[in-house]
Amino acid sequence: MKKILVVGLGLIGGSLAMALRGFEDFEVVGAVRSQATHDKAEAMGAADRLTFDPAAELPGADVVVLCQDPAGIIAFLEEHRDRFKPGCLVWDVCGVKTAVMEAAKCLPDGVDFIGCHPMAGKEVSGIANAEGTLFRNTHFIVTPGPYAAAEHLELLRRMADHCRFGDVIVTTPERHDQMIAYTSQLMHVIAVSVCADEGLFSCKGFEGGSFRDCTRVAALDPAMWTQLFTLNAPALSQVLEGLEGRLRQYRQVIQSGDRETLSALLAQASGRKKQIDLERARGDDVRPSF
Amino acid sequence: MKKILVVGLGLIGGSLAMALRGFEDFEVVGAVRSQATHDKAEAMGAADRLTFDPAAELPGADVVVLCQDPAGIIAFLEEHRDRFKPGCLVWDVCGVKTAVMEAAKCLPDGVDFIGCHPMAGKEVSGIANAEGTLFRNTHFIVTPGPYAAAEHLELLRRMADHCRFGDVIVTTPERHDQMIAYTSQLMHVIAVSVCADEGLFSCKGFEGGSFRDCTRVAALDPAMWTQLFTLNAPALSQVLEGLEGRLRQYRQVIQSGDRETLSALLAQASGRKKQIDLERARGDDVRPSF
Repeated sequence: MKKILVVGLGLIGGSLAMALRGFEDFEVVGAVRSQATHDKAEAMGAADRLTFDPAAELPGADVVVLCQDPAGIIAFLEEHRDRFKPGCLVWDVCGVKTAVMEAAKCLPDGVDFIGCHPMAGKEVSGIANAEGTLFRNTHFIVTPGPYAAAEHLELLRRMADHCRFGDVIVTTPERHDQMIAYTSQLMHVIAVSVCADEGLFSCKGFEGGSFRDCTRVAALDPAMWTQLFTLNAPALSQVLEGLEGRLRQYRQVIQSGDRETLSALLAQASGRKKQIDLERARGDDVRPSF
Repeated sequence: MKKILVVGLGLIGGSLAMALRGFEDFEVVGAVRSQATHDKAEAMGAADRLTFDPAAELPGADVVVLCQDPAGIIAFLEEHRDRFKPGCLVWDVCGVKTAVMEAAKCLPDGVDFIGCHPMAGKEVSGIANAEGTLFRNTHFIVTPGPYAAAEHLELLRRMADHCRFGDVIVTTPERHDQMIAYTSQLMHVIAVSVCADEGLFSCKGFEGGSFRDCTRVAALDPAMWTQLFTLNAPALSQVLEGLEGRLRQYRQVIQSGDRETLSALLAQASGRKKQIDLERARGDDVRPSF
């Protein structure tokens, strides 16, 4: 029997371990650090087997999935670089890819690191919130280095299928980080910025769906998102600056009372949104998987 | 039998007509302008009866619900001011209240206008998207003038119950407009500003739930939102300016690499969000109804 070692059973790692159970002839071993996580994971049946000692499992692991935060992943790679099984596949799940791919260069030849990012999540964290169904119909983004083995890409695709991801997107780490600055990191900065408004606690009773939806992800983990934002500072700063400019433009047009310009701006932006919703409904956004 | 006249069977008017059917001993009459809306409303059973001639119905209507856009409501009040039944209750559903309450001063004494705002909606419009269940567990905001009849407030409360609103919030038009600038209008400006980013069409495959949630309402009706934003320009400009400042602060801290300050900002904002989610879960935000 082959072995998948999932390191870190938080929301994503715990959900992945559950989703990967029963994958081909692999045993899924979950590495935890705390007794509380161990006991919860055991009660949930999150993995075939649990361990407090990932170092002891590494030499026998055919696939290693690193599910810590970026700093935890980078530290793990450096600490355990010589324990990985030759020929194994190592992948991670964190939200920045250039920095992690760079850190993975410390691995010896023959250990194949492929950056991954499951575009799934919740506004709550920890094994208690993990679900094996978390990844259904979400994007699985893969950023292989130039020397990634074809058999490992194929193995990843089969694992993604088993977890019921909606599609597999293959791209470069740089493009991933650029896109994610816009589609994910910017949404989180918006959410916390809205929640920092002094009106937050006095607006109860006046919220509709748009407010709940926009602010949902503000309940984030500050330590992890500090890492994610900092490790992607140039791309994130750029999209933030763009948004600031467009908000300023709306404010100035609204203040000036220029209804014609306001209406034209709204027509253009809402038209773009309707267009992309239409393309999505038609399935135009299905990406080729590898 | 008494009569409720619902003027304008779009998304909100159509949904309200459906939700109000069967209310006490009232007949629900829906006033439409186009044959297409008439036929769709008839097929959906949106009202007990339909008419193209609201002017003919007004003298016999005990309750009139104005469901046009703000300009349409204001024009209707001016055009039909002398046709309302003495002692009747008139309410509207639009998203700005000060301007509409001001316009309603043209009504003769004895016609009781109470501003209302059901905090429900969809990113699509029209009778075809209307549903009698649209208002369930949403807020029904009511802004009575200083001389509103107690019996009419009580009648509104019973109608809100019948439509299954989650609660009824009574406030002033000014406070409504201030709060709504933050909880609703700002969310719409954010959504269209995000969708105006040049990255919108190239980011397919990289969106997660936060992106879909934040941009959902960008598919708005430009003409209606031009009115709503313009009629509430001072309050909206103020919250926009606040958001611009906080986004700029995040960008500068991220660019500077000051992880400590970034982490502190994120901890504060996410703590506020977690706090308000907790209060909501405990039911602390239930407002006294009148």
